[in-house]
Amino acid sequence: MSTAFPVSPPLARRMAALRSSAIRDLLAVTARPDVVSLAGGLPDPDLVPRERIRDVTARVLHSADALQYTETAGLRSLREVVAARESVRLSAPVDAARVVITHGSQQALSLLAQVLLDPGATVVVEEPAYTGALQVLRAAQARILTVPLDADGMRVDRLADLLSAGERPVLVHTVATFHNPRGVTMSAARRRELVGLADRYGFRVVEDDPYGELYHGGPPPEPVAAHFDRVIRLSSVSKTLAPALRVGAMVAMPDVCAAVELVKQGADLCDSRLTQEIAAELLADEPWLDAHLTGLRDEYGRRAAALRSAVARELGGVATLGAIDGGMFGWLEFVDGTDADALLPVALDHGVAFVPGSAFAVEGVDRGAARLCFTTNTSDRLEDAVARLAAAHRAPIPGAAGGQSTQE
Amino acid sequence: MSTAFPVSPPLARRMAALRSSAIRDLLAVTARPDVVSLAGGLPDPDLVPRERIRDVTARVLHSADALQYTETAGLRSLREVVAARESVRLSAPVDAARVVITHGSQQALSLLAQVLLDPGATVVVEEPAYTGALQVLRAAQARILTVPLDADGMRVDRLADLLSAGERPVLVHTVATFHNPRGVTMSAARRRELVGLADRYGFRVVEDDPYGELYHGGPPPEPVAAHFDRVIRLSSVSKTLAPALRVGAMVAMPDVCAAVELVKQGADLCDSRLTQEIAAELLADEPWLDAHLTGLRDEYGRRAAALRSAVARELGGVATLGAIDGGMFGWLEFVDGTDADALLPVALDHGVAFVPGSAFAVEGVDRGAARLCFTTNTSDRLEDAVARLAAAHRAPIPGAAGGQSTQE
Repeated sequence: MSTAFPVSPPLARRMAALRSSAIRDLLAVTARPDVVSLAGGLPDPDLVPRERIRDVTARVLHSADALQYTETAGLRSLREVVAARESVRLSAPVDAARVVITHGSQQALSLLAQVLLDPGATVVVEEPAYTGALQVLRAAQARILTVPLDADGMRVDRLADLLSAGERPVLVHTVATFHNPRGVTMSAARRRELVGLADRYGFRVVEDDPYGELYHGGPPPEPVAAHFDRVIRLSSVSKTLAPALRVGAMVAMPDVCAAVELVKQGADLCDSRLTQEIAAELLADEPWLDAHLTGLRDEYGRRAAALRSAVARELGGVATLGAIDGGMFGWLEFVDGTDADALLPVALDHGVAFVPGSAFAVEGVDRGAARLCFTTNTSDRLEDAVARLAAAHRAPIPGAAGGQSTQE
Repeated sequence: MSTAFPVSPPLARRMAALRSSAIRDLLAVTARPDVVSLAGGLPDPDLVPRERIRDVTARVLHSADALQYTETAGLRSLREVVAARESVRLSAPVDAARVVITHGSQQALSLLAQVLLDPGATVVVEEPAYTGALQVLRAAQARILTVPLDADGMRVDRLADLLSAGERPVLVHTVATFHNPRGVTMSAARRRELVGLADRYGFRVVEDDPYGELYHGGPPPEPVAAHFDRVIRLSSVSKTLAPALRVGAMVAMPDVCAAVELVKQGADLCDSRLTQEIAAELLADEPWLDAHLTGLRDEYGRRAAALRSAVARELGGVATLGAIDGGMFGWLEFVDGTDADALLPVALDHGVAFVPGSAFAVEGVDRGAARLCFTTNTSDRLEDAVARLAAAHRAPIPGAAGGQSTQE
């Protein structure tokens, strides 16, 4: 800006520190219709229950109050149906007073950071990590430590090592079920170990669970929060009903709920009563919801299988795909030294997009991996996408091996 | 909480510092059907264009994309129609790139505080102040200075005094048009003086303008932002279309837009594409919108007049009502020494609610005033409400003169 008007120091700092999510920037590029995008974390719009939402909306709009302001913590009927569903998942009664509805579960992360973290506070995340959590934690000027993942999810033994070494995190963030980006799920044993450590060392666990209902085979292990009532549990209807409802739900102890509600007043007063009414109606109709979720699970399971067989066929010996039991993502690891960052622009030229693993890196940068979303596209398109990716992999990479990154 | 689990220091501090808005707590009490509430700042649900929103929603939902995630800065079509409307209001072309859609204009305040303020930063607000701004500024640990209001809005001369005395605010927040809670409007001359000071001293002005389209007689003076392109201008459809759309709009310079978009990614990823599509359609239909706004202005003008004549009839000699040229609020000042805080519980017993002036106090506590909202209720109900208020005023106040406050 060529002006004498001062740039405020915080603004300048935010712009430098808060890198825009590389994924979101990438999404802009990949919106081109000739590109099959495995990059976003988007549900398939054709699987969103649009007709049903249209019917419910028409009915909800018979009431004049549906378009009025609503309570900061969320519409009572929505909190109650969320509490009822969470009671089933946690195998323990959850009172609606322990539920706060947020503007997507991303808002809950943001409000929790305001409520729980001072600048410099130590937090632990999984490596690689959900980028939305990293953005929030960096904005809060947290000191971020990482624990690696393996096929059974977070290496809780490595967390124990950190604690033994004297680290005292305020909170530990985990996408325990169908991890973003890794796709793995924390085992039941590790869930118990994690809450044991939380109890012993007095840190809070944030169980970020937008994908738990999207399992393919059997249901995943019980939520982390089922093992300890002090876990802060986040869920969302964005992946099961529709992103545009912007309905996330936090289940937490009353002190955390009260503080989050308080900062939410300042953050946006309240969410949309209209979309909360819609979500409440859809969640309360159990027969319909069960059938809808079963349909989603079946179709997404078929797509994951199609992705797997396409990778085996097209990229066998070159890359391996991690296990996929649900969620939205498969983790592709090149075993031939391919640099995924360098591959990306070539892949875009071949009409396919993915997110390089480096976008999810906190400390270690893994340039040999890619996150592939299998929910947005049909099985046919997924197979086509993997063929394009294989063609890109066979093409020469400009700028030679170890090529330049397209992301900061 | 009877537990060894540690309460995090930030959480404890937030709970102490971030008093819940007294108004919002009051709203819970006044939801009783036997109470006529002049307390909230709510549009009349019967004047919200529900049929039209139902029609538009049905049409919008023909597109599968309407329920998908959308851009963080807002749907392109919505930004464009906002830019077109703002171009008219500001008498200068506004590019859509200078518009960021937020989750109500409250979210813009919250994001701006994150972007512009370090702890201890000096900000100036009007006294009495919009409580939603105070919540945000207190959460940001700003150092809050105040400038009084008179019938011509902010006493800009008093702001000049602060600046002359060496104060260097980062920003000045003003509800220049139809002030909440005072109802007054800043004169055109003072708007020019304000931006002259902003230019000279290098502070930012946040023009918080949710009410500007709701004028009764002629339109208000040109927006503050019409005088200086570095004013950050906030508007909202909550009062003109529907609160449940949760659509606010910020017009600002590109650097501020970019920073706000960046922190919004972490705050909630994006808003509801569905409600943004609805808002875009309604705002783009100029003939319909003009007729709708004219209807609102006429009806709210009639209600303001009804409130005025009822106050003159029922409370003449006891209280005076400030001028009302638009917006949602009238400012009632008792001239007989009545303590509005002490009057409130008596008024609730008589079936009427208002917000005592003290709820909007920053430094000086004005216990002799009350904010009356005239938009939620019909003229008949307003007249009834004032009669109840007069009856409460005639009743003995428990605990004697200067009685105890019902609010912190």
